[in-house]
Amino acid sequence: MKISIIGTGNVGWHLAFELEEAGHTMIDIYSRNLQNAKNIASKLYDAKATNNLDFSKSKAEIFIIAVPDDAIASIASEIILPEKAILAHTSGTRNIMELEACDNPKGVFYPLQTFTKFKKVDWSLVPICIEATDKNTDDTLTKVAESLSSFVYFLDAIQRKRLHLSAVFACNFTNHLLKIAKEVLSTHEIPFEILKPLIIETVDKALLNGPENSQTGPAIRNDIKTIQTHLDDLTFEPQKQEIYRLITKAIMEK
Amino acid sequence: MKISIIGTGNVGWHLAFELEEAGHTMIDIYSRNLQNAKNIASKLYDAKATNNLDFSKSKAEIFIIAVPDDAIASIASEIILPEKAILAHTSGTRNIMELEACDNPKGVFYPLQTFTKFKKVDWSLVPICIEATDKNTDDTLTKVAESLSSFVYFLDAIQRKRLHLSAVFACNFTNHLLKIAKEVLSTHEIPFEILKPLIIETVDKALLNGPENSQTGPAIRNDIKTIQTHLDDLTFEPQKQEIYRLITKAIMEK
Repeated sequence: MKISIIGTGNVGWHLAFELEEAGHTMIDIYSRNLQNAKNIASKLYDAKATNNLDFSKSKAEIFIIAVPDDAIASIASEIILPEKAILAHTSGTRNIMELEACDNPKGVFYPLQTFTKFKKVDWSLVPICIEATDKNTDDTLTKVAESLSSFVYFLDAIQRKRLHLSAVFACNFTNHLLKIAKEVLSTHEIPFEILKPLIIETVDKALLNGPENSQTGPAIRNDIKTIQTHLDDLTFEPQKQEIYRLITKAIMEK
Repeated sequence: MKISIIGTGNVGWHLAFELEEAGHTMIDIYSRNLQNAKNIASKLYDAKATNNLDFSKSKAEIFIIAVPDDAIASIASEIILPEKAILAHTSGTRNIMELEACDNPKGVFYPLQTFTKFKKVDWSLVPICIEATDKNTDDTLTKVAESLSSFVYFLDAIQRKRLHLSAVFACNFTNHLLKIAKEVLSTHEIPFEILKPLIIETVDKALLNGPENSQTGPAIRNDIKTIQTHLDDLTFEPQKQEIYRLITKAIMEK
C-alpha cells in the first residue's frame, strides 16, 4: 500500500520505518516542524517531507495520524485528502469520530505498545487493534496490520477504551511502582538491580498462571505484623504509605 | 557442606534440591508433617525425613529454617543442634535475633525470589542476602550462597527490611495491578494476552533505563481529559477508582 504518516513522534517514527520494511511505500511524512519530517523522510526510500496538510495531489491510499490525542480532531478538520484515501488515527483512547470533520473513509489503527525512538520493537508480537467506518476500510487496515503483526484484533471504541484503561494499570502504574521500589532502595544504598530477577519472575508468573493465582506477599498472607512494620517505615513518605495501605487493603479483601 | 532444611514449603523445597545439585549433602528434612518431609527426602540422595527437632545426633553443619515468618522464633527455641552447627533463617522481614533462643552461631540466608513448587528457577541469577552473628558464620553462609548464585549481597537487618518493603511495591503490588488490568478487560471480553507484549516491554524498559525515565501514560502527560474518562469508567468499581486516582496523583506530582 501507499501510506503517509502524519506526525513524527515515537509512534510515527516506528510506523514509518516498519511499514516500509514490511513492503509498503511511504509517500508523505508530515510534521508542523518541517525539519522533524525531513529527519524521517530522508531515511526512507522515496518519502516526501512536508508541513502542509493539503494532500490533494498525494498518491497515498492511507493516511495514518500519529499525533497527541488532543491534536487529532484539529488535524482531521484541516487535512485535505485525495478521493477515497483512508484516514486513520493511532490512539487507544479516542473515538473514531474524532476524525468526523474529514469526509473520507475513516479508521483506527492502534498498536498496543510503548515506543521509544531508536529502541527496536518486535512488531510481529505487537497487538494491533483495528476499527473502521466501513467494510472496505476494515479490510484494508487489517491487511496492513497483518503485514506487521501476527496479533490483529477487532475492537470497537468501547473495548479499545477499556483496553487502554487496563494498560494504564498494567503498565503506567506498574512503572510507577517500580520507581517507588527504586526510591525505597536508594535511601539505604541498595542497588535497584537486586530486584531485577524477582520482578521478571513475578511478571512471568502472572502472565503464565494468571495474576489472580500468583499473588504473594504480606497482604495475601494476612501478615499484619509485617504490614504494620512497613507502614511504620513509610511514616515520612506519606504518599508511598497511602499507596501501600490502599493496595494492601485491596489484596486483603479478595 | 552438610546441610539440613527445616520446613517443606516452596523455599525449603527449592533449596533442598538446588543445594544438592550444587554439590552439598542434604542431611535432614524436617516438617511437622512427616509425610511432607518424606516427599522431599525420598527424592534426595541420602537425606532423612523427620518431624523431631532434636538434631543433637545429626551430622549437618548448617540448619536452614524455611518456615512462615511467625514460626521462626518458636522453631529456634525448640530446636536442638549439634555443637557449632549454624542456624540460619530465610526470611526477608525478620531480624537475625528471631533465632536468639538458640545458642549456636546464627545467620540469615535470604534468597530474593518468588518460588513455586515444580517451576524451575535459575538460581545463578537469584540474589542471596547474607547476614551473620560472626565472621566464621558469614564466610560459611557466603560460600554456600556463592555455590548457588552469582549475586550474593551483604545486607544488615535494616537494609534487608527495606529491600523486602521495596519488593512488596515492585512485585506484590505489581501483581495486583495486573490482576486489576485482567478484570478490567474481562468485563468487555478482551483476552488478557493482548497486554502481554506491552507489559513485558514496560518492565524491560524500566529495568534498562530506570523507571524514573520510563513513565508514560495520561498522568505524566497531564492528560486530564483521558484521566477523567477513566475515572468515570470506574464509577462502579470504587476500589479500582481509588487506586487509579491515587497513583495518577503520585505520577503527576513528580
